[in-house]
Amino acid sequence: MKLSGKQLLGNTWSQKGQRTFQGLQASNGENIDQIFYEATLEEVDEAMRLAKNAFAPYRQLSHAKRAEFLMAISDEIVALGDSLIQMACLETGLPEARITGERGRTTGQIKAFADYILGDWTRDIHDPAQADRQPIAKPDLFQKNIPLGPAVVFGASNFPLAFSVAGGDTMSALAAGCPVVFKAHPAHPNTCEMVGLAIQQAAQKTGMPEGVFSMVHAVSNDIGGYLVQHPMCQALAFTGSYRGGKALYDLAVRRPIPIPVYAEMGSINPVVLLPEKLKNNSDSLAEAFSQSVCLGVGQFCTNPGLLLILKENEGFLENLAQKLDPIALGTFLTPGIKKAFISGCEHLSKQAGVQKLTTKGIPAPTLFAASTHSARKNPAILEEVFGPSTLAIVADDMEDLIAFIGDLPGQLTATIHGESQELHPDLIDALSQKVGRILLNGFPTGVEVSKAMVHGGPFPSTTDSRSTSVGTQAIYRFTRPICYQNFPAELIP
Amino acid sequence: MKLSGKQLLGNTWSQKGQRTFQGLQASNGENIDQIFYEATLEEVDEAMRLAKNAFAPYRQLSHAKRAEFLMAISDEIVALGDSLIQMACLETGLPEARITGERGRTTGQIKAFADYILGDWTRDIHDPAQADRQPIAKPDLFQKNIPLGPAVVFGASNFPLAFSVAGGDTMSALAAGCPVVFKAHPAHPNTCEMVGLAIQQAAQKTGMPEGVFSMVHAVSNDIGGYLVQHPMCQALAFTGSYRGGKALYDLAVRRPIPIPVYAEMGSINPVVLLPEKLKNNSDSLAEAFSQSVCLGVGQFCTNPGLLLILKENEGFLENLAQKLDPIALGTFLTPGIKKAFISGCEHLSKQAGVQKLTTKGIPAPTLFAASTHSARKNPAILEEVFGPSTLAIVADDMEDLIAFIGDLPGQLTATIHGESQELHPDLIDALSQKVGRILLNGFPTGVEVSKAMVHGGPFPSTTDSRSTSVGTQAIYRFTRPICYQNFPAELIP
Repeated sequence: MKLSGKQLLGNTWSQKGQRTFQGLQASNGENIDQIFYEATLEEVDEAMRLAKNAFAPYRQLSHAKRAEFLMAISDEIVALGDSLIQMACLETGLPEARITGERGRTTGQIKAFADYILGDWTRDIHDPAQADRQPIAKPDLFQKNIPLGPAVVFGASNFPLAFSVAGGDTMSALAAGCPVVFKAHPAHPNTCEMVGLAIQQAAQKTGMPEGVFSMVHAVSNDIGGYLVQHPMCQALAFTGSYRGGKALYDLAVRRPIPIPVYAEMGSINPVVLLPEKLKNNSDSLAEAFSQSVCLGVGQFCTNPGLLLILKENEGFLENLAQKLDPIALGTFLTPGIKKAFISGCEHLSKQAGVQKLTTKGIPAPTLFAASTHSARKNPAILEEVFGPSTLAIVADDMEDLIAFIGDLPGQLTATIHGESQELHPDLIDALSQKVGRILLNGFPTGVEVSKAMVHGGPFPSTTDSRSTSVGTQAIYRFTRPICYQNFPAELIP
Repeated sequence: MKLSGKQLLGNTWSQKGQRTFQGLQASNGENIDQIFYEATLEEVDEAMRLAKNAFAPYRQLSHAKRAEFLMAISDEIVALGDSLIQMACLETGLPEARITGERGRTTGQIKAFADYILGDWTRDIHDPAQADRQPIAKPDLFQKNIPLGPAVVFGASNFPLAFSVAGGDTMSALAAGCPVVFKAHPAHPNTCEMVGLAIQQAAQKTGMPEGVFSMVHAVSNDIGGYLVQHPMCQALAFTGSYRGGKALYDLAVRRPIPIPVYAEMGSINPVVLLPEKLKNNSDSLAEAFSQSVCLGVGQFCTNPGLLLILKENEGFLENLAQKLDPIALGTFLTPGIKKAFISGCEHLSKQAGVQKLTTKGIPAPTLFAASTHSARKNPAILEEVFGPSTLAIVADDMEDLIAFIGDLPGQLTATIHGESQELHPDLIDALSQKVGRILLNGFPTGVEVSKAMVHGGPFPSTTDSRSTSVGTQAIYRFTRPICYQNFPAELIP
């Protein structure tokens, strides 16, 4: 498949800038041939102008027509065949089985959104008129959800398909009726262009208004900032680091007209292991926990980076360390992520009260441990280290554990492993206050794409706890309610 | 009824500060006897601490128990009888019939929230497990909405009951399970304390956790700013001016942990009068429009401050001016609002291209007119003048009108008066992009309390267009979704 390295602006390609970059092979850091051009401000303006112009005709399309567009995107992605799989593996270092699975997840969630908007998804509420009500007649009121307008989406590096160009953010915005300008991820630009071209093809084949989708490339932050501050941008979705997400949030809320920001920024995903459960399952829990920590080289938003355990069960940590030690490190998504993992582990190992329990040198799958007392003295040890490491915090007793949970920052997930007699409501309540999803006797890695899923949570795990970025409810991030008063049904769009 | 002038902190009264103020009689600006004490920072801390402590037991109450609390508030308000009506009239200058009606609206909306939370309001979504799904089993997922935490509410001056202490913001937060710290409005502190005491009574009679409601007084802005930045504050609701709401928004989004802000900040509520409708109804429309402009001395958020009309119908404006001229001005809520109305009208009358069509001097019910061309040259003439005035903008033709609408800032409402043959979809579409509510052949003043109502709209009419502050859906401003994965039903709260 021939790529261009250019911006995809509606139905055309554009290359006005001179700054270039290349994708890298994750396994060895070597360049991939294709040259990519960073977008210019003028090209961003054009993408946003096209999106604005597309908004009126796109929002007025029937939901069936919109669903047809979505399914055409899915078809075009599948039609890319092995070349897409190979390119994504090359750029991310993720194994073929994982990328193939992720493609299935991506097309599955596209179909879920398409199916969802074919149903009664706009949350219509009808309060009929009461002409005879005293003292004044009650009007006819009809509420429904309508799209916000052009959305800007920043993809994540760790899911090059499911959280990237045709990932949940883009597809939920398109499903809601919002044109999308996608900021391609420089860690997998070739994969991005392949999927971007698939969307461009699908838009043309199904007769969508030009500008319903555009994609721009950039390595430097200034283009991202310009996108977010663009007057025609009406909503922002982002998956990535706290630093990146918070910077975009800060720009968005300082705009003359602020916009909603859905930044999913990471989490250390506490996992509580309770005594009764550990009594008979210590070995299988150590095994499953170590696998969850190392899944995708630990580069999952829901990676269990915090293990909470009582002092009486401290012995479990040795078992866990022994399970982690033999696991091979694997290939990181980018050299930058590997470097940050190394410096994060090195920094953590030097902190007062923190012990490294695994025996291999850094970088390797690593278990750290500290007491609640040490963590209270130095809360910075709780900062996320993105990659296959986890920090065990040992609490004196249940009271100490619950108090410690009460002081945790917001998280995407929390997990309890326990037998039914030890699942105290106060523990469940304390954890639920901190998260968007709480799991019993499972592992947080692996986010089901489903109507009931919540992939979100209190700040700083996201900038907006009132939403999910996975599952069909993600669509409502890009809508707002409107009430039609005394409109005959035929005039309500 | 004996008032204290003190802060209501949970079940007690507190007076630690020395700064005092008094309520004023709206009609003559004279002091009302009762001395009020401004809250100190220490008192705010105490209110927030009580709210935080109340949050866990309050959120765990059954919805039936919470509904009982709400209905007890309604009963206590009714039990205040005429003394409440008289005080609200004294402090606001609004007539007795209006205040009596507003009390009915207030108790009506309390009952609506109580009824709503007795139903299936938490938007539960259940995706059952599929143990046999390939390649991996599907977990059981249960999504529901849970309360955000202690909310801070700022009341409005223009609805001393329905948008104040026990107004829609407070009651929707309490219904959702969030304790409330209310910042009393200094324009009606006596009315505030009466209603605050009613809530305090109701909380004690129904055995609510102490701190579920507190109320603090302040004239100066520093206490308001301190409340919004308080680490224990988890959400903010405000009704008032753009200046006040935007200042609070700016503080809230700059917090170390940002919080949702629902500031309803006003609107000029465009009303479009179309030619066919005007042909046979010019006189009745002029009459109804003038009444809507002057309702409550023009001090409604939904007051029609912008009339949009085609050049061919310019003659209607004379008719409208003649209807407005004989209407008495009425008593403003506060001397400050009167002063701002006078300076707003004087400023507008001096702007290039703006004509004053009513003949009385300022202040009086006033009609201004300008062309779309003048408004495009000087968009500042569209700024809200709070009170009984309206600005007519004359468009060359329908194309010019729709283009002009496309450039309007966000509004709470828009209205079209037209016969069915002239209701062009493009006009409806253009208006709907700007508002939370669109009306056909009616007037925006008078906001029905109902499930389908949207009292909200794009910035700058509010800071969050994804919500309504009136009607039962207002409750969702104070909730967020959580997903329980593989939890047996008996462990889901």
